Amino acid sequence: MQPKSPSILECPVGRAVETVGEWWSILILRDAFQGATKFDEFSRGLGIAPNILSRRLAHLTESGMFVRRRYHERPPRYEYVLTDKARDFFPVVVALLAWGNKHLAPEGESVVLASRDDRRPLDPVVVDAADKRPITLATATVIAGPRASRGMRKRLVSLKAMNPAVAPVGD
Amino acid sequence: MQPKSPSILECPVGRAVETVGEWWSILILRDAFQGATKFDEFSRGLGIAPNILSRRLAHLTESGMFVRRRYHERPPRYEYVLTDKARDFFPVVVALLAWGNKHLAPEGESVVLASRDDRRPLDPVVVDAADKRPITLATATVIAGPRASRGMRKRLVSLKAMNPAVAPVGD
Repeated sequence: MQPKSPSILECPVGRAVETVGEWWSILILRDAFQGATKFDEFSRGLGIAPNILSRRLAHLTESGMFVRRRYHERPPRYEYVLTDKARDFFPVVVALLAWGNKHLAPEGESVVLASRDDRRPLDPVVVDAADKRPITLATATVIAGPRASRGMRKRLVSLKAMNPAVAPVGD
Repeated sequence: MQPKSPSILECPVGRAVETVGEWWSILILRDAFQGATKFDEFSRGLGIAPNILSRRLAHLTESGMFVRRRYHERPPRYEYVLTDKARDFFPVVVALLAWGNKHLAPEGESVVLASRDDRRPLDPVVVDAADKRPITLATATVIAGPRASRGMRKRLVSLKAMNPAVAPVGD
């Protein structure tokens, strides 16, 4: 999928979607966050076809999510090391995990997020860094940033106008 | 894509990926969070082919993310209303937005998350609900939950053992 509408290309969510490409990329990053670095480790964990895995690893490397490092000379073997850009993607996977556990594990949780220190289970919530209050659909909206094009400004206004139920409370 | 390895089917991130299906779904939810409810509103915002949009809306409805509501009798017209399950997905989109703005908007931000009340920009961060401390790759790990299968327990141990650089600090 290559979405190309201006609302996608200019939107940070759209760009994120373009960069991470498709769902295998999320799952490859998930395993990298758990320590996988080698082709065989990704392959074993995911049951993904080798040609698709190759393509996804190449794409993530080109996108600046992995640095390829040679760890064996003959034959040449590479491992995939997470960059800071990729490490900053961790909260997205954490948010997916929390949502999956809440809504898609009716039989109970198989995987739990926990503190590395003391193994205490963690309950992830997205808050504003300034006041630590949860960011929800009821409290947050999107507005034009300093680099918004005319088209994006128009779009943001028209989207807000659509549905009074989610329109800004303070307006 | 239909990933079917046990590491995917039993993992909350894998299940989330299966449920939301593919990237169009994320973008459809993004627009729904901004107030879009009608076919034409999604279609206009995304520049998505009508047959793909139909299929994605049907899938999201079957997955319990939308309830379809008739808003016009003749001809029959439906709108797609977000469920609580879908509203709980908002933090995932917020995390994608924050990451996109940080790493994919070198020219400056076009879209900014803001408080509905006072338009103050929000700086989303994922924290633990209990102590409000940020959850990062350095501080968090995954452990087996109460319903983890033998296979999942083995997998979690082997992933942790792979890479000392991300192994639990406290172990």
